[in-house]
Amino acid sequence: MSIVVRNPPRTDLATVDALGAFGVATVHEAQGRTGLLDPALRPVYSGARVAGTAVTVSVPPGDNWMIHVAVEQCRAGDVLVIAPTSPSEAGYFGDLLATSVASRGVRGVVIDAGCRDIAELKAMGFPVWARHVSAFGTVKETLGDVNTPLVCGGQLIMPGDVVVADDDGVVTVPRPAAAEVLEASRAREAREAGLRERYASGELGLDVNAMRERLADKGLTYVDAPDGG
Amino acid sequence: MSIVVRNPPRTDLATVDALGAFGVATVHEAQGRTGLLDPALRPVYSGARVAGTAVTVSVPPGDNWMIHVAVEQCRAGDVLVIAPTSPSEAGYFGDLLATSVASRGVRGVVIDAGCRDIAELKAMGFPVWARHVSAFGTVKETLGDVNTPLVCGGQLIMPGDVVVADDDGVVTVPRPAAAEVLEASRAREAREAGLRERYASGELGLDVNAMRERLADKGLTYVDAPDGG
Amino acid sequence: MSIVVRNPPRTDLATVDALGAFGVATVHEAQGRTGLLDPALRPVYSGARVAGTAVTVSVPPGDNWMIHVAVEQCRAGDVLVIAPTSPSEAGYFGDLLATSVASRGVRGVVIDAGCRDIAELKAMGFPVWARHVSAFGTVKETLGDVNTPLVCGGQLIMPGDVVVADDDGVVTVPRPAAAEVLEASRAREAREAGLRERYASGELGLDVNAMRERLADKGLTYVDAPDGG
Amino acid sequence: MSIVVRNPPRTDLATVDALGAFGVATVHEAQGRTGLLDPALRPVYSGARVAGTAVTVSVPPGDNWMIHVAVEQCRAGDVLVIAPTSPSEAGYFGDLLATSVASRGVRGVVIDAGCRDIAELKAMGFPVWARHVSAFGTVKETLGDVNTPLVCGGQLIMPGDVVVADDDGVVTVPRPAAAEVLEASRAREAREAGLRERYASGELGLDVNAMRERLADKGLTYVDAPDGG
Amino acid sequence: MSIVVRNPPRTDLATVDALGAFGVATVHEAQGRTGLLDPALRPVYSGARVAGTAVTVSVPPGDNWMIHVAVEQCRAGDVLVIAPTSPSEAGYFGDLLATSVASRGVRGVVIDAGCRDIAELKAMGFPVWARHVSAFGTVKETLGDVNTPLVCGGQLIMPGDVVVADDDGVVTVPRPAAAEVLEASRAREAREAGLRERYASGELGLDVNAMRERLADKGLTYVDAPDGG
Amino acid sequence: MSIVVRNPPRTDLATVDALGAFGVATVHEAQGRTGLLDPALRPVYSGARVAGTAVTVSVPPGDNWMIHVAVEQCRAGDVLVIAPTSPSEAGYFGDLLATSVASRGVRGVVIDAGCRDIAELKAMGFPVWARHVSAFGTVKETLGDVNTPLVCGGQLIMPGDVVVADDDGVVTVPRPAAAEVLEASRAREAREAGLRERYASGELGLDVNAMRERLADKGLTYVDAPDGG
Repeated sequence: MSIVVRNPPRTDLATVDALGAFGVATVHEAQGRTGLLDPALRPVYSGARVAGTAVTVSVPPGDNWMIHVAVEQCRAGDVLVIAPTSPSEAGYFGDLLATSVASRGVRGVVIDAGCRDIAELKAMGFPVWARHVSAFGTVKETLGDVNTPLVCGGQLIMPGDVVVADDDGVVTVPRPAAAEVLEASRAREAREAGLRERYASGELGLDVNAMRERLADKGLTYVDAPDGG
Repeated sequence: MSIVVRNPPRTDLATVDALGAFGVATVHEAQGRTGLLDPALRPVYSGARVAGTAVTVSVPPGDNWMIHVAVEQCRAGDVLVIAPTSPSEAGYFGDLLATSVASRGVRGVVIDAGCRDIAELKAMGFPVWARHVSAFGTVKETLGDVNTPLVCGGQLIMPGDVVVADDDGVVTVPRPAAAEVLEASRAREAREAGLRERYASGELGLDVNAMRERLADKGLTYVDAPDGG
Repeated sequence: MSIVVRNPPRTDLATVDALGAFGVATVHEAQGRTGLLDPALRPVYSGARVAGTAVTVSVPPGDNWMIHVAVEQCRAGDVLVIAPTSPSEAGYFGDLLATSVASRGVRGVVIDAGCRDIAELKAMGFPVWARHVSAFGTVKETLGDVNTPLVCGGQLIMPGDVVVADDDGVVTVPRPAAAEVLEASRAREAREAGLRERYASGELGLDVNAMRERLADKGLTYVDAPDGG
Repeated sequence: MSIVVRNPPRTDLATVDALGAFGVATVHEAQGRTGLLDPALRPVYSGARVAGTAVTVSVPPGDNWMIHVAVEQCRAGDVLVIAPTSPSEAGYFGDLLATSVASRGVRGVVIDAGCRDIAELKAMGFPVWARHVSAFGTVKETLGDVNTPLVCGGQLIMPGDVVVADDDGVVTVPRPAAAEVLEASRAREAREAGLRERYASGELGLDVNAMRERLADKGLTYVDAPDGG
Repeated sequence: MSIVVRNPPRTDLATVDALGAFGVATVHEAQGRTGLLDPALRPVYSGARVAGTAVTVSVPPGDNWMIHVAVEQCRAGDVLVIAPTSPSEAGYFGDLLATSVASRGVRGVVIDAGCRDIAELKAMGFPVWARHVSAFGTVKETLGDVNTPLVCGGQLIMPGDVVVADDDGVVTVPRPAAAEVLEASRAREAREAGLRERYASGELGLDVNAMRERLADKGLTYVDAPDGG
Repeated sequence: MSIVVRNPPRTDLATVDALGAFGVATVHEAQGRTGLLDPALRPVYSGARVAGTAVTVSVPPGDNWMIHVAVEQCRAGDVLVIAPTSPSEAGYFGDLLATSVASRGVRGVVIDAGCRDIAELKAMGFPVWARHVSAFGTVKETLGDVNTPLVCGGQLIMPGDVVVADDDGVVTVPRPAAAEVLEASRAREAREAGLRERYASGELGLDVNAMRERLADKGLTYVDAPDGG
């Protein structure tokens, strides 16, 4: 049976936007190094960063019919998250679907399969993270599911969860954890800002982090190169 | 025996140029989803789109001698299509050969092996689609063929066939089919332009394509999320 | 035992800078087609070219502690060269470490593992060549070595050796050979400049390189296409 | 926080054993083509077929400490299912751990990372399905979870779910669906047994499945080869 | 339009059988190093060697309907050669189809996609060379072609051509060249038998092939290890 | 310049044989987890285990001439270690060369490229570890080096070093370290033999290794499944 779940609860957008500002690497660390999708999912053009609430779509291999069904379930602030039930390199998503979801305020797409119309997507400024780039199209024969739990890029994503994506990849934050991860991201970023300043001024991580003693205890040994310098 | 075929009949350039304007994804669809080269052949820099008539070159692994032979067979409007007889990551093509073929009006290169001098090619604006990027050079010891039927990226390409390439990949159109595929591309593009406008205004693919009844017949079921929204 | 070698002799920077101006492809050829790192090590953003003296870092899988140790050993003109003792996709290097090494005049990083904070690195203009892009972080538990002989991308690199990197990849030149390779690069570049000019004017490689006779001897045969042109 | 869940409910072994007898391909089809793990998880030696109840283990990259913790949670009829929180090629599992779990009646291991001691495992007759073979060992520094929901090979697996594995790969069946999938497998196998007999006697699928009319409707055309036979 | 070509001319089986006896490596060499399929097509179990006449099948991605159509076109001595029009990892071929084609005397299958029921195929002794192993099934919705020219594993194969496959891979020989390649294979094998005997007795390739002078001319230099032996 | 170094000092065969008996995984651990070659180098048939002294051969891509040169430098107890100067999938090594080196007492081959005649090698019982299997042959045009330092599978190997290879992969032990690594292997194996016996009797690693307290300190928590067992 194929199901479309309407109006799943979504993470509130203020939290989503605040998480997005930190970017993938910081959010991933702040969340205890969980939730990172397979790094093989890459942006189809570089320089974009988005955060949104997941609308999940489970599609058959080589069949994008359910994406059309999913569009109607999207609202402003969403990110469409698509995964096939078995590996597929087909180009499920292109500029026509992008036009459609962009008109509803969707911020981007994450797809564990192929994407096409790369030049047009870049011109539109509509970002997609995909496993493949392929012009090979799809059919519309078989159903799937919308807004049910989905494994995409090796991570379990529930509808309404946060998805943050940038040039480093894609990370997901479960809705119930979003506020806590946001706090942890703020704390981490504040700490990193301080470190960045000290590093820029020439201080060493060895000193800033007081690593020298522990390194010596572990047996680190310094020697001079035999033929000087 | 190694052969160079001179002056193979080529698709007329008006048709080629018109096909090029539609891009890879549209031409591939218009041709009944045939002719797409292996998506592993990627542009060495993004943003280019070319269409041309194929000059085919079959080369030994790690040996680019025949590319020099092929240059003489090129004329304005051609795209050089190169494939090794066994897999090779070597950098067969770089800025010197690009300078040579560009001086003859060649529009780009498709190679099922490696390419080098990426920065220089980008600066020249000479686009290449390649399977690998590698600075490793080639020797000039063994012959091959020019303008004989060639399998490149998994597709059979005849000299004079159309080759269209952009950020989505590379598609080939057989010379005898070019006019017909052009017509089909025009029809498809016209249809898509209408769809794009409707999607941009917020209409749904479900309605535009009258999919709702067929989806219901297949058993698609809508349910509300248990905890509201 | 873990060792940090201080002040290894480095190739003089005048030679390094001169090699860098030629780029990877030319230096690799001038060196007899040796020293090219695995082409799977790609720039995290395109358009950069650097040359520097290697500071080598051997790191455990998923552990970047030794990079902090290595920073102190860096000086202006260096390139940090990092390889794990077994394959790792973790993101060892990001914008904080980049800030730290950039403050010391390090010109770039080559890493046979993962890199993160791609957007920030591009904004800083700090180039990295890496096998993977991944936001997944590393721990600081286990020691490694700094400035000992290192295999990175399949090539043996000694501290102080020259590393040249650009969009074509990464090549290393042993310190003792640097002056000789520089001379060979100059000779090659001069020859290529002449060729480039002749090719641009429409001369053929067949004639410029006097290849026609040898091709005929090998059995190359020209035939006209059956149905004209 | 790291958690070990004790005594999760398990699918009853009679159902598990019956499913195992059908093998991966049949169970996967009977379940509506869901639950197949990434085909990159291959048996480390061929010829084994097992079915069991999942004990799930989430491990850090390069760290197998939690497998030792998981052993205590295993009982006869289980299959250990292991996935790292980020990609790792390390050899997490070898003959010592195999000896330990085999002594408790564990039937096999599925691991989305590396395995080692292949020859010993084969000699013991203890089957493992793994993404990698690698002798590179792991550390014991960081915690993970046992018997919590786990994504392995791209599929969500709950502790106590059925896991069937053979030379075709690995499929998982959710505990609540096991009885139903078993019935569907029986029906499918019965149907296939009939087909197999008819095919063996020379009947054609075209006739057995009454495909000829539908093929003709779709436009299939038969022509004789021009130069006979 | 979809076409099935009936009764294409086939290479005579005496020639086919004689070629098969030499194996892939010898036939490939004897044919001037042409016709080798992509080495990524591997036997699903080791130890088989077959030769046969190609029945070609072009299939849509994830759809094996045309294989059923192709079965009827097979006769004793054939090898079924299958390629999808775009990359697919689906398991197109399993034990039921194998039973069907084996009943007609088909000797094996070469498929540029996925295969399943590996254990059953091995038990039957029906060999398959495939790019993937996957239990994921296919649909029966879309037509393709039988016995038209097909690119499989990067090589153009015409119906009736010879296909030889063993643990080294798969090679194809065009029907018109089969007799000539057979003679060349015999000559090569005879020469190799002589070499094998001389090598087994301890003679060196350097002497048997009179290589020493040419090596010296190229500049090969022998030195003794500094610290003896 | 191309060089053949004659009679490099070799590790004594008693040490080599003793190391071989422990296998790759144990030797690698005993050596502090260093020296493991890229796991992509796999045995061409399973079940073999060899240890020998390295004769190193650096070959051009697609050119196996230097292997013929290397044969003369081999003696009983050697393992031939071959790596191309740039990536190559060509089949450098087959049954003829195997016959030749086997006649001199060579125990096996490790090659960071392709191998062919797999069935014949298995029938001879001559084991090869290779990155690729390919029937595509090589030329004999360009020189390389024998018994110079070689990077193979990402590891630096000196002539005379120990190479151990089995189903787990390939590990190299530097000649000067061989005796020490042998002792460490013995100690490790003795410890593992004790563990194996205890594990087989049902003792847990948690107790044998006294891990429970440290796990609790790190925060490991046990909970019972909500719905019993």
